[in-house]
Amino acid sequence: MSTTIDVAESSHNNVSKGKATIVGTPKRPGGWKKGVSIMDFIVRLGALASTIGAIATMANADQTLPFFNQFVQFEASYDSFSAFQFFVITLALVSGYLVLSLPISIVAIVRPHAVGPRIFLIILDTIFLTLATSSAGAAASIVYLEHNGEQDPNWLAICNQYGTFCMQTSEAVISSFLAVVSFVIIIIINTLALGKH
Amino acid sequence: MSTTIDVAESSHNNVSKGKATIVGTPKRPGGWKKGVSIMDFIVRLGALASTIGAIATMANADQTLPFFNQFVQFEASYDSFSAFQFFVITLALVSGYLVLSLPISIVAIVRPHAVGPRIFLIILDTIFLTLATSSAGAAASIVYLEHNGEQDPNWLAICNQYGTFCMQTSEAVISSFLAVVSFVIIIIINTLALGKH
Repeated sequence: MSTTIDVAESSHNNVSKGKATIVGTPKRPGGWKKGVSIMDFIVRLGALASTIGAIATMANADQTLPFFNQFVQFEASYDSFSAFQFFVITLALVSGYLVLSLPISIVAIVRPHAVGPRIFLIILDTIFLTLATSSAGAAASIVYLEHNGEQDPNWLAICNQYGTFCMQTSEAVISSFLAVVSFVIIIIINTLALGKH
Repeated sequence: MSTTIDVAESSHNNVSKGKATIVGTPKRPGGWKKGVSIMDFIVRLGALASTIGAIATMANADQTLPFFNQFVQFEASYDSFSAFQFFVITLALVSGYLVLSLPISIVAIVRPHAVGPRIFLIILDTIFLTLATSSAGAAASIVYLEHNGEQDPNWLAICNQYGTFCMQTSEAVISSFLAVVSFVIIIIINTLALGKH
């Protein structure tokens, strides 16, 4: 039986050579693709942990200074900054997606040669990568301002006064970029597994 | 000849069902995959145009107010803002990549069934999508501050004074997000073309 297939397919290769890589390994029932799917699951869990860590750190970032003047008590919290609000909302969406994508990742482990789950994951991962990256970039921009300020528009750095708040928001941004890197790794390995047959 | 192939492959499908979708259409020499590659090329050109437009608009964003005090002449330009410098540098890298990726996209048009160029494009597109999105997000965050300011850290909006500068930087950010959307479209269509055989 298998001899028949080989002969038929190798003669078919002469007709359309673009399919040559597809018919190479029909024997292995799981092979390295199962490994890729397991790695996808682990890195996806890591991305979820980073995202939840980023949300928790940012949402708890709050510092009240131990003095106040007659106008206002000095307090910094994440919801004073629109970019940080956007950060928390966006990463909440991303972590929700990551939770929902775990079952699909498990399907890809059980059926490592199925293309459907992998295509689905790559496309949605790309979309949520974009969401996560834009909010991470926006928050990083504000964290930079907190640390360094900008001279020309006279936006002063606030990290001298709000040191703890600054540190917490910086940690949240770093954690979100870890999630971004995880997404990129997941997309790359799934693309390789999708392309090589 | 083709009857032999069909019989051999359909009996092969009973053995490993995961490969079922692969052997469906061996007759069409290009088909819809060529269309996907042509669409990739066109959207890629659009992304390149958006990126170059964003760089040009941002790099030329410059406004000097018609008055000055004894300390400083009031001038706003993109290099007063670290996020805008990052924006220009990153998008220059992205546009360089887009130019270099055009030949690979042409290879994918000529050989629509080859998986190598498509894998290569998806992986590099994902990496440069991340670069472009982070800089677009960072710049968007600063543009938001220019328009609205932030009350608690006392960062005042500057768009009342620097209206032209504000408009130019906003346009550059919008243009960069068009490039981001183009990247996402390219990755999605190439993933579909890679997965469906």
